[in-house]
Order: sequence, then C-alpha cells, then structure tokens
Amino acid sequence: MEHDLNHHIVSAFDRDLEGIQARIMKMGGLVEEAIINAAKSLETRDEELAERVRSGDAIIDALENQLNEEAARVIALRAPTAVDLRVVLSVMRMSANLERIGDLSKNIAKRTGVLVQMQPIGGTAASLRRMAREVELMLKDALDSYIQRDEELARDVIERDRDVDQMHNTLFRELLTFMLEDTRNITACMHLHFIAKNIERMGDHVTSIAEQVVFLKTGEKPGEARPKMDVTSTDAALTGANGLSESED
Amino acid sequence: MEHDLNHHIVSAFDRDLEGIQARIMKMGGLVEEAIINAAKSLETRDEELAERVRSGDAIIDALENQLNEEAARVIALRAPTAVDLRVVLSVMRMSANLERIGDLSKNIAKRTGVLVQMQPIGGTAASLRRMAREVELMLKDALDSYIQRDEELARDVIERDRDVDQMHNTLFRELLTFMLEDTRNITACMHLHFIAKNIERMGDHVTSIAEQVVFLKTGEKPGEARPKMDVTSTDAALTGANGLSESED
Repeated sequence: MEHDLNHHIVSAFDRDLEGIQARIMKMGGLVEEAIINAAKSLETRDEELAERVRSGDAIIDALENQLNEEAARVIALRAPTAVDLRVVLSVMRMSANLERIGDLSKNIAKRTGVLVQMQPIGGTAASLRRMAREVELMLKDALDSYIQRDEELARDVIERDRDVDQMHNTLFRELLTFMLEDTRNITACMHLHFIAKNIERMGDHVTSIAEQVVFLKTGEKPGEARPKMDVTSTDAALTGANGLSESED
Repeated sequence: MEHDLNHHIVSAFDRDLEGIQARIMKMGGLVEEAIINAAKSLETRDEELAERVRSGDAIIDALENQLNEEAARVIALRAPTAVDLRVVLSVMRMSANLERIGDLSKNIAKRTGVLVQMQPIGGTAASLRRMAREVELMLKDALDSYIQRDEELARDVIERDRDVDQMHNTLFRELLTFMLEDTRNITACMHLHFIAKNIERMGDHVTSIAEQVVFLKTGEKPGEARPKMDVTSTDAALTGANGLSESED
C-alpha cells in the first residue's frame, strides 16, 4: 500500500515534469524563431517581419510566467526530492534565460526599424545573420541536450560559444573601421554594434542553459572556470584599441 | 500537539529564511561596494582599486551559489506553503540579479585598466560616477524595501530607473559628439559607452529586484507594463540618430 502510494506520487511528479518540459520546448521553439527572424528582418530590411518579432515577444514572456507558476505549484504540491527539485529549479532558470534571449531578439527587431532608414554598412548585416544562425543552432542543441540529458552535447554547446565571441570580436573591429573611415557611419555602426553585442549575449544565455545540463548530470558547474573570461580580459588590457573586452563575467 | 508541531515547523522555516535574508543582505552590501568602487576606480584612474573590484567578484559569485544551495535545501526540507515558497524563490531570483550586477561592476573595472592608458574624454568619468551612485542608492532602497516589505519604497525605486535611463541617454549623445568631433576618441568612447550601458543594465537588475518586492506584496508584476519601453522604442524610431534605443525589453 505504501509502495503504491509512493509510486503514485513519483508518477504524478513525472507527469507534471513532462508538462513543464513540453512548455519549455515550446518556449525554446518560439525563441529560436525570434532569433532567426530578428536577424533576417535586419538583412532583408523587412519591417513587417521585425514588427512580428516585436509583438511575438509577449507570448514568450507569458510562457515564462506560466512556467514559473507551474514550477512553483509542482514544488508546493509534490515536495520533490533533492534531485527532482534541482530539475524543477533548473527549468525556472532556463526559462529566465530563454526570456532574456527573447528580449534581446525583440531589441534587434526594434533597431531594424531604425536601420532601414540608413545606408547599409558593408556586409555587416550578413555577418550578423550568420552569427544569429550560429546562436540559434547552439540553442537548439542546448535544449536537445537538456531533454536527452546529454552532457557531451551540452559541453559541445559551451565550446561553440567561443566561435560566437570570435565572430563578435571580428565584427566589432570591422565596425570600428567603418566608423573611423567616415563619421557619418557612426550612428548606424552603433546600432549594428548593439545588435552584435545582443547576439553575443544570447550566446552567453545559451551557454548558461548548457551549463545547467552539465550541472544536472554531474553536480558541477562548468561555468566556474570558463576560459574565455581571462583571455578576453588580458587581451583587452594588452592590445587596447583592438581588443575591447566584450566579456561581462 | 499538532498545533505545536506546526508552530515548530513554521519557526524552523522562519529561522532558515532569516539566515537566507542575512546572506542576501551581505551579498547586496558587497555588490553596492563593487558598483561604487568600479566607478570610482574609473574616475580616479586607480588601477589597484579596479583590481580589487575584479578579484572581489569571486566572493559575490560564491555567495550566490551558497544562497541557491540554501534555498533549495529549505524548500526540500521545510516544504514551505505557497506564500513562503514564493518568498524563497524570490530570494533566488534576487541573488541572480545581484550576481549579474557584480559581473557588470567587474566588467567596468576591467575597462578601467584599458582606459587609464588613454586620454580622458571630457567629464564623462564624473557623469558615469554619478550614474553609478544613483544605481547604488536604488539598490540600497530596493534591498531595504525587500526586508521591510515596503511596497511604496519598491515602487519608488522602479520610478527612479527612468532617471538612470535618462542619464544614460544624455551621456550616450555626449559620447557620440566626442566621436564625431575626433575619430581618435572613438576607442575610448566605445569603452565609456560600454560602461554607461553596464550601469544602465544594473539599473534594470535593481528594478527587477524592486518588482519582486511589489510582486510579493500584491501578487502582481509591475514590470508587465513598464512605460519606458514603448517611449524609448518610439523615440528611437522617430528620431533616429539622437534617440538610439537602449531598452532591451
């Protein structure tokens, strides 16, 4: 009898968790779409698509609220064990990361509205689209790694964030050159730089999701000693003009 | 007997919560110090102070980890009611906000190391220090409002974030002017702009803490309809060059 009762409780928790995970996957899908569409609207100068990204963010925000409510309800109702509790709390953190990525996509879409009124700056919009595509693929893999509890895939995602940082640094130097060449480019370049920075920060949020997968599997946070921080910082201090540090850690 | 047992459980939770709140106040104090010292190191070109901010961030990160562990332990052990659970979860979110502010302070301190090698740009370092001071005062009040569950004070903090946004926009236009005036200023101005942006984002994190206080008191999130988003966005779309949107929502 007692065994049955326990069994029943475990199953109820599993069912709840499945519901929560389905919702986070839905949220993840919308966020992936927002990343891609924000970058695409910029490159194709599609104001209508940009507006869709901006208005679509409300749905992502609503999903985060629902996820938080649901997670709190599950904790209160099921009183999960330490390990299960960790899973639920990680979902709450992941949804916060996803919500931030949604915000950053929305911000890019806002800037599209301003940038269409200015001259395009070289091939920077295409570079930004490639960067966004890379982050979107990382997010897809990070979410897969969560569902499959695939530590190796999660670590792969964390590694790939360096490529995004690299792309960002290259683009940043390019934008500096455009500004130095012609001061009339400065305003557009500043917008483009904000966009690059937003995509780079998306990469950090995706990395944070992947780090939580590693944490769930190993109990250790790979983020504690992420190599990129120190390198970027030293780089900035040594090279000055060219190595503006982008790391916020 | 049952009443006594309940009473005992409630007290244990309250004791735990007190411990957690003491730790978050400690974390908040360190973060306030980091904000002030980061801005001060920039204005006084004090590389030693900047280094103290950079290395001190590890303590803030450790406190966040401890808080998360403690909060998870309390949830698992005490199975708090819905309301108490909300308090514990809000502490976890607040500690995440504080940790991010610590990161942003560290990033400012990193840039100090680069900026001391360049010419100062007008009175921008002093403006940044004033902005940082404002954010630090907001943080102090946000933490007080949490401890005292003072909704009015929390709403006041949320209002004041507009001043920070305003200071940021003014400073941003000033930096644009310096860049247009002399392209040799561009690199330093970009660093200063990153710093301004970091302080503005600190303000957003403080606002998020204050919003959680309002949520705890009223069950409603004041953030859902924060007026500043739309204003900034419209402003940017209309005015182009001068009204670069800084909002990320």
